[in-house]
Amino acid sequence: MIFIDKEKLDEILTPDRAVNAVREAFVLFSQGKVNQPIRQSFIIKGNWWGVMPSYTDFSFVVKIVNVINKNKEKGLPPVQAAVILLSPDNGEPLAYIDGTYLTAIRTSAASVLSTEISYGKKVGTLGIIGAGLEAEYHAKTALRYLSVSRLLISARKRHVDLAKKVGGEAVDLDTLLKESDVIFSTTSSTTPVVYGDKLKEDFHLVSIGAFTPDAREVDDSTIRKIKTYIVDSLDAVSKESGDYIQPKESGLLKNKNILEIGNIISNKIKIERPSIFKSVGISAQDNLSAYYAYKYSL
Amino acid sequence: MIFIDKEKLDEILTPDRAVNAVREAFVLFSQGKVNQPIRQSFIIKGNWWGVMPSYTDFSFVVKIVNVINKNKEKGLPPVQAAVILLSPDNGEPLAYIDGTYLTAIRTSAASVLSTEISYGKKVGTLGIIGAGLEAEYHAKTALRYLSVSRLLISARKRHVDLAKKVGGEAVDLDTLLKESDVIFSTTSSTTPVVYGDKLKEDFHLVSIGAFTPDAREVDDSTIRKIKTYIVDSLDAVSKESGDYIQPKESGLLKNKNILEIGNIISNKIKIERPSIFKSVGISAQDNLSAYYAYKYSL
Repeated sequence: MIFIDKEKLDEILTPDRAVNAVREAFVLFSQGKVNQPIRQSFIIKGNWWGVMPSYTDFSFVVKIVNVINKNKEKGLPPVQAAVILLSPDNGEPLAYIDGTYLTAIRTSAASVLSTEISYGKKVGTLGIIGAGLEAEYHAKTALRYLSVSRLLISARKRHVDLAKKVGGEAVDLDTLLKESDVIFSTTSSTTPVVYGDKLKEDFHLVSIGAFTPDAREVDDSTIRKIKTYIVDSLDAVSKESGDYIQPKESGLLKNKNILEIGNIISNKIKIERPSIFKSVGISAQDNLSAYYAYKYSL
Repeated sequence: MIFIDKEKLDEILTPDRAVNAVREAFVLFSQGKVNQPIRQSFIIKGNWWGVMPSYTDFSFVVKIVNVINKNKEKGLPPVQAAVILLSPDNGEPLAYIDGTYLTAIRTSAASVLSTEISYGKKVGTLGIIGAGLEAEYHAKTALRYLSVSRLLISARKRHVDLAKKVGGEAVDLDTLLKESDVIFSTTSSTTPVVYGDKLKEDFHLVSIGAFTPDAREVDDSTIRKIKTYIVDSLDAVSKESGDYIQPKESGLLKNKNILEIGNIISNKIKIERPSIFKSVGISAQDNLSAYYAYKYSL
């Protein structure tokens, strides 16, 4: 049994390894080789908690995650998680992994993977919206995995600090939307922060926010512009994300290519841009990332 | 975040502390102050896996447990578990605890607690049936928590080794049943190992095996003899244990006092012997034991 904390994770789960882990996760998921039983969720003291088991032929993983918004006021992360890996063969607990950072790493790995697939690794201007832990890891992972000429960061607050920390430029949202080739939107906003009429003609957009049916991170004009709508799990975004559910219901997704990323990878499907990758995060990502964090720790 | 392994558990979760933890667990459970959502269970590669969340006002716990019978052939424990404790206030992961040993400790603590309640701490002859991890911890906990004059151990195999290890006498089953005042039955047998016609007139029996509806660890003549049928959770034994379900259906439990141990403690109910404590184990025990293991580690 090993114990993998933030420092060890940062050291062993490099962007290359994290991207390989989530690539395998998406492929196995689309092939039906990751069992993701329905997660149990609870409201405790007004906060959301989830217990998410998943298993493959070689890994049994449980992630326990909570969303405690008032933590922001105290300087604690609003989303925290714990991850356990066990052997599905002999049942042995193999690793405890800091789930807060594992989640940040696997989420950013999926975002850069979708960028590589749709846009290529060479990105002129990358814009990151948000300044929380997810934004920070998106910046770190992108700067190490992609080739980025210019990094713009915009948020309601703290983007100046984050830009300084990761080596980017803090800009207002309009500038970011107008000048970015690739955008990662990582906010907890429930109303759109990405406006299609500001965007370039060609872009790849990643949206990891808006994970409830009534929330939006991306507006309708953005959806109108895109040709390809990539998702992590069609089932998950259909149930969870307003950015998918609402345009689907209003008919805006007619004539779009809607594709699961695992299917794109397996079948080497060429993506037409502009494109969006909408990700609510799936247990398969946690599972494979935890497995490889363990493997590389041995 | 702290990491509590077997050695640390043995050191900090002493029998006194473990008994106090499960006493509080049973009381809170009977008062409806422990939330025990339905556990998720899976069959993976032919083996049973369970994910069991539970929470109180001060502790959120998930136990992941599996039963891998072929482990016995390899010298690995057939039942293994991992336990995580988080704060229900700020969501922070607080402790990872070796669940295999936490389970053995909390189960044996409940057994000695039921003995204290029904029989008192002074036991002439204690008989333990079984020679696995549970039997070992039952012997250890009993010898430290109760006052035992004579300890008998009987099992199909390995009881000579266990008797040597813990300081007891290895005997055949008949001798154990005839001579014991208190019996702890800790087997994985699906057919009875406790025969009422061999038992003394006065006894307290604890049975922690037979945790499926078609399994029995205790025969009907034992049930006929007892006056008080104590359970950890009426709901749980009614669903899970053949030792309760079968005599209930055949009418043998008419005119018995059937009581939850938490209720007995809260209301200081005096127990009439002979008595049985049938325990399938409840999440509240894991929850409070994990919480106190953490508290005493600080």
